[in-house]
Amino acid sequence: VAARVDNILVIGLGLIGGSLARSLRQSGFSTRVTACGHREGSLRKGLELGVIDSYSMDLDESLADADIVVIGTPTLTASDMLRDILPRLPARAIITDVASVKGNLVETYRAARAALATTDDGQPVPVAQFVPGHPIAGSERSGVEASSADLFVDHRVILTPLPETGAAANKLVRDMWLSTGAEVVELGVEEHDAILAATSHLPHVLAYCLVDALAQSELSEDIFRFAAGGFRDFTRIASSDPVMWRDISLANRDELLKSIDTFVDHLGALREAVALGDGEALRATFEAAKTARDSFTEKQDTD
Amino acid sequence: VAARVDNILVIGLGLIGGSLARSLRQSGFSTRVTACGHREGSLRKGLELGVIDSYSMDLDESLADADIVVIGTPTLTASDMLRDILPRLPARAIITDVASVKGNLVETYRAARAALATTDDGQPVPVAQFVPGHPIAGSERSGVEASSADLFVDHRVILTPLPETGAAANKLVRDMWLSTGAEVVELGVEEHDAILAATSHLPHVLAYCLVDALAQSELSEDIFRFAAGGFRDFTRIASSDPVMWRDISLANRDELLKSIDTFVDHLGALREAVALGDGEALRATFEAAKTARDSFTEKQDTD
Repeated sequence: VAARVDNILVIGLGLIGGSLARSLRQSGFSTRVTACGHREGSLRKGLELGVIDSYSMDLDESLADADIVVIGTPTLTASDMLRDILPRLPARAIITDVASVKGNLVETYRAARAALATTDDGQPVPVAQFVPGHPIAGSERSGVEASSADLFVDHRVILTPLPETGAAANKLVRDMWLSTGAEVVELGVEEHDAILAATSHLPHVLAYCLVDALAQSELSEDIFRFAAGGFRDFTRIASSDPVMWRDISLANRDELLKSIDTFVDHLGALREAVALGDGEALRATFEAAKTARDSFTEKQDTD
Repeated sequence: VAARVDNILVIGLGLIGGSLARSLRQSGFSTRVTACGHREGSLRKGLELGVIDSYSMDLDESLADADIVVIGTPTLTASDMLRDILPRLPARAIITDVASVKGNLVETYRAARAALATTDDGQPVPVAQFVPGHPIAGSERSGVEASSADLFVDHRVILTPLPETGAAANKLVRDMWLSTGAEVVELGVEEHDAILAATSHLPHVLAYCLVDALAQSELSEDIFRFAAGGFRDFTRIASSDPVMWRDISLANRDELLKSIDTFVDHLGALREAVALGDGEALRATFEAAKTARDSFTEKQDTD
């Protein structure tokens, strides 16, 4: 199979960036997969493990001959990185990313693009095209050591292509992810952030909130002593990386606030039913939730 | 090993009652294990499967020669059952139960006992002694078909003995559970209900509430389509039996309301931090929660 591009540059070689690099080397989608980042230890490890073909600590040198730049750093760092590299990137390159929130990155891209809008003689400056992406995949483990060429197989990758991005750029990033075995779907930027707030960001905030509230309770020692399997599953996501989830909460602030408010409204109604002893309202809500959840897991299991 | 009692009667032969019966027959703690209930199908099945020695649909006949009566029915039914059988039970018998809430049962017991307080000639009526119990064990499956003699091995059983109950009665129920391989611990009635509200009843309400809120959202189809593994774990308990959880919510109303209110306070503080962009407050809360949860699971894993 002929390679589709000559050089894919991964900036930030962690679990996701490393797994993508492995998969792209395996599939031959790119002639070379290179990496750049702040931590030489991870880059050297990536080279030793055969995750990448080469690396450089020099960002400008790395950017110079990249066809696709994948920003593999987490949410807020990705935004800083995008702002930083856009003016230094050849206009023929395509940028994409793997961060969990898309709205803040698109804002950053548009602001950086506007700042570069014209040259001194009034001509529009050509700017590298941005295709925001979000692979729905992860692992309990992190770092390039945990990377795997199979991480994205049968997982969804959401792209939120922008109107100002050309069809060819969108297609190339889509094909890149298809070559990893992922299923690629497209959503609008706002839609993506609203859906992820509801299904991922809100649940993480609720789980963190519950465990923190219980830990502060005067009964906390006994509470954790008697917690059973259901509690363990429910709070698993409260063992996630606090810095990563701080950044996601800040980056997706508006959608997360909407999700919290909707949830609090519903919880208020349930509280009222408990207070009034309204068993029928409780049963109806619990039943509707069970039906929705059972149907969701059945669909997933047959996917 | 000599049997400790002649006849243990299980009222309501489901997963928990059936598993206890199997285990008690296996250990020989009781010469006979009998059952009584409304649904002859379950009782006949229990007999066929060797879960029990015999059964009767006649409650008075069943109660007459029982040494220990185990109310195996769910929360609210257990309360009705206790009210119903107490006047008909020989005073030498001991009653215990397996329901998830203890305060409402103790109230029922005390009210029924007070109503029986004296005979026509002013003598105190002897009343069977009550030792409230709650095995922290379960299964995705239900019914006597799913029962297993091993269900309680290495699981905790919480007893909430009452001041008015004699030490011998408490010890006998404790020994009964120890014979199943369970670890038996004692808590006060209020303490039990507060702890279970925090670790079990509140998480169930939150999970039901989240899934119901998302199902009612205009994005619900996409929300469930893009939900990943974390969401699946977080909402697993929303697939629990709605009638059982309605009853638990009603039976433990006061403690559940307190738990909901504490949770809403904490969520309000997190919401404020998100709204203000206060990353340090978010990180500190997430970190504290992660630390508490990691230490809780480490303790459980080494138990």
